[in-house]
Amino acid sequence: MTTVETRAVVDLLGVLAYAELTAFDRLAEDARLAPTLDGRAALARMAAAEIGHHDRLARRLVELGAEPAAVMAPFTRALDGFHEGTRPRTWLEGLVKAYVGDGLAADFYREIAGFLPEPDRSLILEVLADTGHADFAVREVRAAIAAQPTLAGRLALWGRRLVGEAISQSQAVIAERDELARLILAGTGDLTGIGRLVDRITAAHTERMRTLGLNP
Amino acid sequence: MTTVETRAVVDLLGVLAYAELTAFDRLAEDARLAPTLDGRAALARMAAAEIGHHDRLARRLVELGAEPAAVMAPFTRALDGFHEGTRPRTWLEGLVKAYVGDGLAADFYREIAGFLPEPDRSLILEVLADTGHADFAVREVRAAIAAQPTLAGRLALWGRRLVGEAISQSQAVIAERDELARLILAGTGDLTGIGRLVDRITAAHTERMRTLGLNP
Repeated sequence: MTTVETRAVVDLLGVLAYAELTAFDRLAEDARLAPTLDGRAALARMAAAEIGHHDRLARRLVELGAEPAAVMAPFTRALDGFHEGTRPRTWLEGLVKAYVGDGLAADFYREIAGFLPEPDRSLILEVLADTGHADFAVREVRAAIAAQPTLAGRLALWGRRLVGEAISQSQAVIAERDELARLILAGTGDLTGIGRLVDRITAAHTERMRTLGLNP
Repeated sequence: MTTVETRAVVDLLGVLAYAELTAFDRLAEDARLAPTLDGRAALARMAAAEIGHHDRLARRLVELGAEPAAVMAPFTRALDGFHEGTRPRTWLEGLVKAYVGDGLAADFYREIAGFLPEPDRSLILEVLADTGHADFAVREVRAAIAAQPTLAGRLALWGRRLVGEAISQSQAVIAERDELARLILAGTGDLTGIGRLVDRITAAHTERMRTLGLNP
């Protein structure tokens, strides 16, 4: 790897490591909103899986000679900002956020991982693999909407708000890290390539909203 | 196993399964008080280990034909009461609670597990094994006291309050579950036996307070 590439890889691993730590936090917090003990245990289990991912990323950072806490630090503001701006008020909002928000973020990180050499590409794809919360969230949200159809409108609005916040925060992340921005530009080839990347992410998002029974 | 024994085992597995779920919750909450990202990741990791324990207990309950959520339900009030009554206000109070409070609870459950047949005795001893938070808490608390010796008095008071709350809540748990009470009485033999059990638990507690550098 060139020096620039190494720096971009370290940045990407760092933002992901912190993302997993905040995912843990958020799922642990949402677990407390669960209407049943089974739901609470299910969310706690997903939170635990995120920590397993965090640890793998942190170990790889150490291997690359980086200090995980130092590498994560530049990203705490943007990611904390996203979570503070999208704090779920209900169990269902938490589930929509876990499915739609995490799905969107995972798609974005997966696209960037595609530009990286091994072993980091595979590591990132593995830690982004769903920890089971997708199926769980879809089942719970669909059941809730079936029981009370008026919920759909409010949750669809919530889904749109998540996208808006996610876009503005990811722009903040990229703007702060030159190497990441260069990696994305080099990987996509040009602005048309970036446009196609955004199209793919948008299409996957629309699909997820439909899966939940929500208007995208 | 006799029917009474099975019921006592199910009760004990149930209270433990819920205790692990609340331990997860609490460690996840304390993680947010961490002064560093490394400390936050360390506590999140311990929380994740508790969920692994919870899952093993829940699986065993299913094997015994019990429904985990139903078996945990009778214990939520007492355990939630303990945690609401002892909510740490600082990172250090959280660590003392994790070490002293969990140590006390583990000793108590271990004593009862000794009266059970296999495989439940071993299962309980395994899930009660320390998940690494003991060493971590001891190191952090001792370092904090070394840096600021006046902390010791306040933290010692906090440790005593934890014991008081733990005793009153465990009495509430036993009073509510006849089979558990009978199991303890049969296991210890008589009131002298119970007295010796309490002595052992108290001695271990005193030892833990000293390890932290606190007056018991």
